[in-house]
Amino acid sequence: MSQLKNDRYLRALQCLPVDYTPVWMMRQAGRYLPEYRQLRSKAGDFMTMCQTPELACEVTLQPLQRFELDAAIIFSDILTIPDAMGLGLYFESGEGPKFKKSISCISDIEQLPIPDPEQSLKYVMDAIRLTKKELNGKVPLIGFSGSPWTLATYMIEGGSSKAFTKIKKMLYSEPKALHQLLEKLANSIALYLNAQIQAGAQSIMIFDTWGGVLSHQSYQTFSLDYMQQILSQLKQGKKSQDITSYIPVTLFTKGGGIWLDRIINTGCDAVGVDWTVNLSQITQKGKIAVQGNLDPSVLYARKQTIESNVEAVLNEYGYHNGHVFNLGHGIHQDIPVENVQHLIEAVHRLSKRFHHD
Amino acid sequence: MSQLKNDRYLRALQCLPVDYTPVWMMRQAGRYLPEYRQLRSKAGDFMTMCQTPELACEVTLQPLQRFELDAAIIFSDILTIPDAMGLGLYFESGEGPKFKKSISCISDIEQLPIPDPEQSLKYVMDAIRLTKKELNGKVPLIGFSGSPWTLATYMIEGGSSKAFTKIKKMLYSEPKALHQLLEKLANSIALYLNAQIQAGAQSIMIFDTWGGVLSHQSYQTFSLDYMQQILSQLKQGKKSQDITSYIPVTLFTKGGGIWLDRIINTGCDAVGVDWTVNLSQITQKGKIAVQGNLDPSVLYARKQTIESNVEAVLNEYGYHNGHVFNLGHGIHQDIPVENVQHLIEAVHRLSKRFHHD
Repeated sequence: MSQLKNDRYLRALQCLPVDYTPVWMMRQAGRYLPEYRQLRSKAGDFMTMCQTPELACEVTLQPLQRFELDAAIIFSDILTIPDAMGLGLYFESGEGPKFKKSISCISDIEQLPIPDPEQSLKYVMDAIRLTKKELNGKVPLIGFSGSPWTLATYMIEGGSSKAFTKIKKMLYSEPKALHQLLEKLANSIALYLNAQIQAGAQSIMIFDTWGGVLSHQSYQTFSLDYMQQILSQLKQGKKSQDITSYIPVTLFTKGGGIWLDRIINTGCDAVGVDWTVNLSQITQKGKIAVQGNLDPSVLYARKQTIESNVEAVLNEYGYHNGHVFNLGHGIHQDIPVENVQHLIEAVHRLSKRFHHD
Repeated sequence: MSQLKNDRYLRALQCLPVDYTPVWMMRQAGRYLPEYRQLRSKAGDFMTMCQTPELACEVTLQPLQRFELDAAIIFSDILTIPDAMGLGLYFESGEGPKFKKSISCISDIEQLPIPDPEQSLKYVMDAIRLTKKELNGKVPLIGFSGSPWTLATYMIEGGSSKAFTKIKKMLYSEPKALHQLLEKLANSIALYLNAQIQAGAQSIMIFDTWGGVLSHQSYQTFSLDYMQQILSQLKQGKKSQDITSYIPVTLFTKGGGIWLDRIINTGCDAVGVDWTVNLSQITQKGKIAVQGNLDPSVLYARKQTIESNVEAVLNEYGYHNGHVFNLGHGIHQDIPVENVQHLIEAVHRLSKRFHHD
């Protein structure tokens, strides 16, 4: 049986009743925390922290020592797979992620290996194993990856992008090459996420950060279909009395609110939604779980405004099971810590009335 | 009576029958044209070209000399109003627009003047008057402005932005100050657009380039409400036998596909939609005009792919009046000119069958 002390997050993902709405925050282990900045300045760079299981574990646990969060997410990056494929992920201060090598033609794609997660990504599995042990059942641990499309954007653009010109050129001029890359990524991600589950991840999240830049046709064929392919390969287990016997999967396409019905149709357990979506307009609440959707910038405001915005999200979701409260995107690095404290407290306090029947 | 030789664009905006779907392209007068680059290198900088009516006129007409476009759009910038308010618009090569001064508090906002369009923006009116004369009724001339919200983002961030942190801070912490700015901008834009109509603009477009970064609640109160306020102040004239007696207004919120019904409800004549929207799902086609929605990156592809993507957009719109073909955003600067030629020819040729009844 499960030894989980707080199973609200996993229960919500299965659309089961809970006493209040569980909450976690994307990038909750991050630079807005002084203790994170301190550890980071000692460790040196971001990748060292990801690749040193003791540090990744410590950072994962930091926000849980301060706040009553209902889930932990392993400290890592969405781009670990292309790094393990040999592209050389690095971060320059003040800029987004970059790759030493980028992908520009079919022969580049053919040469990419499918990483063995217990070899070149063992540091992630070790971090999960260690963190799971240290958590000792306090809250569930989330594992994750970027989506095939999102990984491909960084691999082809060589880093962050504004207009995604290179990958879109490939999409419209050499779609077969791009499909070959996405296929390879989907297989790699499925192996990687299954290894995370094996190592102890209790829920999986796929971040499709850049799916929203696609046309409605291309989103289906170049992003969603590959996420669905991963879903079909994941060893999710079976639902039972023991809530932890099943690994729920959340798909989050930033900017994908307009395609929500199609995302729901993949058979995922939960959809992540950004702040452009009005939760009251989601028709399948209670059948599928929904994660979101506060604008992270609300956390710049005074307490009263934070509280009224939390209340608005809860009201829009209403009296249904299956809500996981979160920001619609990662927390900004200059958010005051006390505002986060207030957010989490407000979600718990204000959501209680939605869970009485 | 109208002396317009090609009125397809204006007819489509009034949802009247046409013989084929009219087409124009956002940023059709721009850097992908060798003759534009030549003129620009002589003129020096972008703002000199905007502010010299003879140059603005020449650039406006350049794409019409090459292609069978169904409309001209005056060569200008969405940020002329904040420039006329004294913020000092400039462009650094390879980067987006920037302002010498930016807005950070209520006293900055209070000090902003409402520009008299025939004074500090007279160069735009002169360019419109000259271009209208030179066009000599060949196609209609479009006038435009950025939306209040979009102008405010540049004014507060000081230029382009990724996360819109400063303006979002103001939105959630000092909403009254932001409303005061938006009110001032809405009044300035209404004056400006009415002056453009007076000078000869035959259709108006409001570009809400950054409305899509707002939450669904904030989009209404901080962007759409102000666009509606402008709409109510515009001197659109009356529909009559003379198609040019009425000035149709198109609202385009990039990334606003999820809020399309709300945009339509403002009473605008047309909505612009980016490539995330499936035109077959717009329920009010034929009652409201729709402009869009090809992904501009399609123009990187070979001719056959351009053609199949044009066909897909036309099919999704189907057998309704009211379609203006366009890209879902501005044309990229490195698009081959012959691909544009092919696009426009393909729209005209392939759309004919949708206009037989």
